[in-house]
Amino acid sequence: MSAGSAGVTNRQVRLRARPVGLPRPDDFELVETAPGELSLGEVRVRARYISLDPAMRGWMNANRSYIRPVEVGAVMRAAAIGEVVLSRHHRFQVGETVVGMLGVQELGVAHGDQLLKVDPALASLPTLLGALGGNGLTAYFGLLDVGHPEPGETVLVSAAAGGVGSVVGQIASIVGCRAVGIAGGAAKCRHLVEDLGFDAAIDYKAPQGGDLRKAIEATCPDGIHVYFDNVGGEILDAALGQLAVGARVVVCGAISQYNAEGRVLGPSNYLNLIVKRARMEGFLTFDYQDRYAEGHAQLAQWLGEGRLRTREHVVKGIERFHEALMLLFTGDKLGKLVLELQ
Amino acid sequence: MSAGSAGVTNRQVRLRARPVGLPRPDDFELVETAPGELSLGEVRVRARYISLDPAMRGWMNANRSYIRPVEVGAVMRAAAIGEVVLSRHHRFQVGETVVGMLGVQELGVAHGDQLLKVDPALASLPTLLGALGGNGLTAYFGLLDVGHPEPGETVLVSAAAGGVGSVVGQIASIVGCRAVGIAGGAAKCRHLVEDLGFDAAIDYKAPQGGDLRKAIEATCPDGIHVYFDNVGGEILDAALGQLAVGARVVVCGAISQYNAEGRVLGPSNYLNLIVKRARMEGFLTFDYQDRYAEGHAQLAQWLGEGRLRTREHVVKGIERFHEALMLLFTGDKLGKLVLELQ
Repeated sequence: MSAGSAGVTNRQVRLRARPVGLPRPDDFELVETAPGELSLGEVRVRARYISLDPAMRGWMNANRSYIRPVEVGAVMRAAAIGEVVLSRHHRFQVGETVVGMLGVQELGVAHGDQLLKVDPALASLPTLLGALGGNGLTAYFGLLDVGHPEPGETVLVSAAAGGVGSVVGQIASIVGCRAVGIAGGAAKCRHLVEDLGFDAAIDYKAPQGGDLRKAIEATCPDGIHVYFDNVGGEILDAALGQLAVGARVVVCGAISQYNAEGRVLGPSNYLNLIVKRARMEGFLTFDYQDRYAEGHAQLAQWLGEGRLRTREHVVKGIERFHEALMLLFTGDKLGKLVLELQ
Repeated sequence: MSAGSAGVTNRQVRLRARPVGLPRPDDFELVETAPGELSLGEVRVRARYISLDPAMRGWMNANRSYIRPVEVGAVMRAAAIGEVVLSRHHRFQVGETVVGMLGVQELGVAHGDQLLKVDPALASLPTLLGALGGNGLTAYFGLLDVGHPEPGETVLVSAAAGGVGSVVGQIASIVGCRAVGIAGGAAKCRHLVEDLGFDAAIDYKAPQGGDLRKAIEATCPDGIHVYFDNVGGEILDAALGQLAVGARVVVCGAISQYNAEGRVLGPSNYLNLIVKRARMEGFLTFDYQDRYAEGHAQLAQWLGEGRLRTREHVVKGIERFHEALMLLFTGDKLGKLVLELQ
């Protein structure tokens, strides 16, 4: 037993089997272990909130994409926020609040160079993890650096009530664009317009006029200048059909396709990129690592000014990891999804 | 009868019915008419060669894309090269050689502002129409302005033995890239490497190793930096699977999908745009109209220096329009496809 962990146990969620299609409860297992030794430079963190993100589904697959897959038997990868309980890194002290890829576990370990120190006075821990953390940075760099929105343009975003989409729409408004969001259900759509200041919202489950394409046409009459896509599938196709000339499609994710057992549904309307001289571009937030401080500071400023509003959907208890994960795919949640640890 | 047309007849190919799937002979009719009067500014041209291009298939459909459809009963739209036989435009004299959208007919009429005067001493008429005309300009602006190839990068182009693709690959070589072409059949692949100087060629009908993806991997071991796509479908998907980080996919056309009666096959691998932080971008050559002279002059210079080589596949006789058109889709031709008029 190392110093600082005598008698302490660590509950962690491990990947037991690679999911086929929608993850099932027994694809994971909750295991109680004793924390190990820290190497020089490492920091141990007691996690308070775990971020649940669509990208996690991809990490469960065997094929390498931009990051290696989670090994079967290993702790499930996830971002988390918590307090330092032990540090062998000169920049971190016990009690400081940090965000990092700490995994789905009570006591995570990461090298200090991979941890972001955050100020708990700025916002609640779930907001620091979401809108001021990875989701906010994804929205900030994806919209501004890949989408290049210009004042007066129309920005459409899918999964608009989610952790990334809700920030995308609000930044669009802040930089002078019309923000239109696509979400599932009347409650989310009301939330977008009434709480977050979107100019319009489309309920893809019951679109105005009975047809998603018509609803997009009605809410984006001058065409879509920037489409920020988190969902893929039919919604991406409908958006491609209503692009403005010179449009930018920011490909952030495709949650509708992550559990596909066959081929991913490719966008049939991609030839509209020719007709509209438009582009479709993917990005990874971690390519902007050396600008995280800039993004975080800007998001924090907007939050402080009341121009950025946040909402989190909290599920309590590490043992409810699978149940919480499912909410990403069913959409039965409102706001950024986090798992709270006791 | 107007002056200059007494007793002269004009044979023209009209669209009789909108094709469903692959165009059939009776979707067109050959009609003999008398040429009409010229309005002020118009020029009458005796066409020598008509350009056959995949884009023509799209113009036959009812839906408007970047240009209005050809009306049923109207002359089929096409680019052509020929000599001025009557001019009511101050910049054009009888006997001058011009290129323009003159339609599939012996005597075409266009406003002089829409015609490009070309120098018949520079190259043969088919080459002036193709590699120094619309196809060459499409290759030039699409590759250089949309694809942004850098020396040392790998450029992959599909339909590489065709009017556009053959120029794309040669420009890629000229600007210092590795040029790899995809074409159908051993003869075309030999032509690419031996006559046009491509670094490698892939026969998609019998790919090296039996698998298109493996053949792309083998010929583009550092990944594809620029993929210039003329075909869409499975070949686009295979190319998306082998992109380098930061790749640019230039969407020029999708001949494999133009006769699709159902939905266009969207690129299932589009999510690789995220993994590789890559972009896919469409363009229209006519957006570069004010730079046509630059493109034409540069292509003519490369041709004169022997760095750009051309080959045309000539079908003789306006009455063979449909037969010639079919060669675009079967691929049973080598080089730029033109219809020669007597």
